[in-house]
Amino acid sequence: MSTLVKDLTELLSSEQVSTNETVLHQHGQDESYHEVAEPEVVVFPKSTEEVSAILRYANEHCIPVTPYGRGSSLEAHVIPYSGGITIDFALMNRILSIRPEDLLVVVEPGVSRLELNEALAKHGLFFSVDPGADATLGGMVATNASGTTTVRYGVMRDQVRDLEVVLADGTVMNTGSLAAKSASGYHLNGLFAGSEGTLGCFTKLTLRVYGIPEHVMAARATFNTIEEAVQAVTTVLQVGIPIARVELVDEESIRQVNRHDEMDFEEKPTLFLEFHGNEAGLKQDVEFTTELMTDAGCQSIQFETETAARNHLWEARHNLAYSYIHSNPGKKMMVTDVCVPISELSGAIHHAREQLEAVGLVGGILGHVGDGNFHALVMVDMNDAKEVELSNQFNESIVHYALSKNGTCTGEHGVGIGKQKYQEAEHGEAYHAMKLIKKALDPNNILNPGKIVKVD
Amino acid sequence: MSTLVKDLTELLSSEQVSTNETVLHQHGQDESYHEVAEPEVVVFPKSTEEVSAILRYANEHCIPVTPYGRGSSLEAHVIPYSGGITIDFALMNRILSIRPEDLLVVVEPGVSRLELNEALAKHGLFFSVDPGADATLGGMVATNASGTTTVRYGVMRDQVRDLEVVLADGTVMNTGSLAAKSASGYHLNGLFAGSEGTLGCFTKLTLRVYGIPEHVMAARATFNTIEEAVQAVTTVLQVGIPIARVELVDEESIRQVNRHDEMDFEEKPTLFLEFHGNEAGLKQDVEFTTELMTDAGCQSIQFETETAARNHLWEARHNLAYSYIHSNPGKKMMVTDVCVPISELSGAIHHAREQLEAVGLVGGILGHVGDGNFHALVMVDMNDAKEVELSNQFNESIVHYALSKNGTCTGEHGVGIGKQKYQEAEHGEAYHAMKLIKKALDPNNILNPGKIVKVD
Ligand SMILES: Cc1cc2nc3c(=O)[nH]c(=O)nc-3n(C[C@H](O)[C@H](O)[C@H](O)COP(=O)(O)OP(=O)(O)OC[C@H]3O[C@@H](n4cnc5c(N)ncnc54)[C@H](O)[C@@H]3O)c2cc1C
Ligand SMILES: Cc1cc2nc3c(=O)[nH]c(=O)nc-3n(C[C@H](O)[C@H](O)[C@H](O)COP(=O)(O)OP(=O)(O)OC[C@H]3O[C@@H](n4cnc5c(N)ncnc54)[C@H](O)[C@@H]3O)c2cc1C
Repeated sequence: MSTLVKDLTELLSSEQVSTNETVLHQHGQDESYHEVAEPEVVVFPKSTEEVSAILRYANEHCIPVTPYGRGSSLEAHVIPYSGGITIDFALMNRILSIRPEDLLVVVEPGVSRLELNEALAKHGLFFSVDPGADATLGGMVATNASGTTTVRYGVMRDQVRDLEVVLADGTVMNTGSLAAKSASGYHLNGLFAGSEGTLGCFTKLTLRVYGIPEHVMAARATFNTIEEAVQAVTTVLQVGIPIARVELVDEESIRQVNRHDEMDFEEKPTLFLEFHGNEAGLKQDVEFTTELMTDAGCQSIQFETETAARNHLWEARHNLAYSYIHSNPGKKMMVTDVCVPISELSGAIHHAREQLEAVGLVGGILGHVGDGNFHALVMVDMNDAKEVELSNQFNESIVHYALSKNGTCTGEHGVGIGKQKYQEAEHGEAYHAMKLIKKALDPNNILNPGKIVKVD
Repeated sequence: MSTLVKDLTELLSSEQVSTNETVLHQHGQDESYHEVAEPEVVVFPKSTEEVSAILRYANEHCIPVTPYGRGSSLEAHVIPYSGGITIDFALMNRILSIRPEDLLVVVEPGVSRLELNEALAKHGLFFSVDPGADATLGGMVATNASGTTTVRYGVMRDQVRDLEVVLADGTVMNTGSLAAKSASGYHLNGLFAGSEGTLGCFTKLTLRVYGIPEHVMAARATFNTIEEAVQAVTTVLQVGIPIARVELVDEESIRQVNRHDEMDFEEKPTLFLEFHGNEAGLKQDVEFTTELMTDAGCQSIQFETETAARNHLWEARHNLAYSYIHSNPGKKMMVTDVCVPISELSGAIHHAREQLEAVGLVGGILGHVGDGNFHALVMVDMNDAKEVELSNQFNESIVHYALSKNGTCTGEHGVGIGKQKYQEAEHGEAYHAMKLIKKALDPNNILNPGKIVKVD
């Protein structure tokens, strides 16, 4: 047994420390195309005190530490290329309190979004952020995840009221309070959300929740071209209709859904939409939206008010990435994630389609178009050097296009290693300021080293 | 002429550098009760390059620099207790571009919110944040200001898409992009918003704007007690009615409005409300709200659909603080600004009323109760030691109550000097992390030294 493992076993208990081969392997990969690299040891703390003890120890010995939720991130966020300790938050998975009167919940980081929603439903509440994987809330805060409802309810960062954070040296602190707004001190909630485990480990999260809307209506609208679909969304947003969801799925991806989920959607560029509101307001929103969509070239629009039919529709959308993965065994998913100002979205998607056709790999375009965020997804055979090169070029060309329009290389998946190389190009001098912050809060560079910022 | 003034005159032009007595005095105070202290010199830059040159110079010579918008802040934010240079952004007051398709504007920091709204109205747009003074947008970002519409549209930080910032050493950087969401890098938008001039000077702001709502309805609802009014708000929020404004004004403040603005509102605890939406949805929201309010003890509710009548109502609300100031010549305003979780609001206001009665000074309670944020305002004769002591105790007791309920000492006015002494109590270990960030970004502590964090 190495000294490291021995020391950790003393800090925790032996069943909380693993060097089991399967466990190491599982914690050496994510759900994307990135190269595998295993940690030396995986630990499963049960309390803030244990996390603090692990970090204090790691900091003293300058050992890299990688926090781990479900490993569903897509840019090698959790892959410990410098080895060291992976902290898996699976055993810190309690819902600590639900406060309906304040529309808040307090949870440990290992709770998943579906687990939380199950518990909330009993109170007539829901948690809004819904990435396409059943991620942990800790991981979702750490990547500033978002999803189909972000156009209405905001990103993960917008849901954070307070985080209990263990810093690199083991110090425990709180980044916020329970107040709905504050002008006190620097905005640490915002800084730690999206920090990808590089500034601290979250051990407790206080998050906003919402009342389940009184009335919900979903719809599927088809268009002859992607450009017309995007134009329709732009118009709807500009007139200020408070749409709750608006997702673009291209023709190829509709075919994928039909094959994989045994649906028979019309195989055309499609918008999946949802409206939340009071009965009368929703009706008027739906009517106005239909009018605007029709003017923008919508070919057909079909509404679903029944909960079951609605869930079916959204499941198909949610499972899309997994459906590509399962239909292409042996291949790995590479998915772009740029976000551009809405006025540039149509051009950016047009460019992405051209690139997609040029590389000729299996894949499609889908996205949270209400935010200007879309994914071009390709399935890559990592043993085929040519495919790998093509897909890398594809990814790069899409990022460069977005940056040239003052967009971002990642709307929601985050930086990890995959988008590290674009940080300087995107942020310029601000990248230097980020390094200063990282050095100030983690002087020994033990926390998820190499992710987001590279410090020397 | 001092070396400092000579050097600055060389960097800028002589009419951009002032040591005029009136100018120094004006920049040595704010609109509250804090002690006056004058800068050595006030400069009026016209460009980012000039701001950068000033900061590079100041940093080399370790001279304190205080950014200045309109000086309407309330906690001595702009008072340069360490002397040095005040940078007044009055000459950087251009609206650089309005992008209706992206619902964005780009402005220089010296533009005021009313100036911006005048320009936006031509495009059918408005800027949502509306503090009770015609503050500059630079000052509003720097204090993370908010206002009557925050319950619906968010605080100042939520409106920031990108800031051009000059750091202490003169480096110019951008904190964001034009994308509506991003998971790239650390969240510098959020960190710099609310930093009160202690981390950098903003020279260009890209901010969100909104379409003027299709239908607007305002209302005035009276109650027998403040507690009933607060209970009514809590219920309305919990059921998820997307109310656009909800302001509490106590009996004493209604009397003040009646006297000062020649209104004849019924002298009872009152909620000023506003609804935005489509016609049918708004009607249903209003009906449901009326029902809930009546159940909560509302005595009368009066609606205003006419634009003129609505504006009149909101002007009365907006002018309330100034109305107290103008009616009490020779006295200074001290205004508390705590924010608590909504479930604690009723108790907090009850406590504040008791305290207000106990001190027996002229004043009232008002606030953005939809956010859990309220002000207890007292007019103080600063030459009367007893009044000063009483009002300080009053302020402190309200802050301690809020902190004991996991609230914040300042919901919107910010820290400056006035709330500096509560930073450690409120933030605990996080206060230490804030100091590390301040030191990393401003190692010579030249930027608005002593505000928010005290570094050695
Ligand atoms: C099929 C599929 C679809 C997806 N769709 C979306 C989508 O729509 N939107 C979206 O945003 N993402 C999406 N993702 C990406 C992924 O689900 C998110 O990034 C998610 O937030 C990761 O959560 P996780 O629990 O798996 O975290 P992990 O992958 O385990 O970790 C992610 C990052 O968070 C850090 N971390 C984890 N826990 C903590 C903690 N307690 N404290 C500090 N740091 C921590 C890790 O170090 C790592 O840097 C998708 C992924 C897949 C596979
Ligand atoms: C009657 C009255 C009512 C008020 N009501 C509200 C209210 O409802 N809500 C609310 O939030 N506030 C309110 N305030 C407080 C005040 O209006 C806000 O704090 C406002 O944001 C200050 O803006 P300003 O332009 O006057 O900035 P200043 O007071 O000049 O400066 C404020 C802070 O910002 C910094 N700063 C200014 N410009 C820049 C820049 N370009 N770059 C970097 N830092 C800069 C300064 O250094 C200082 O720390 C009220 C004030 C008064 C007098």
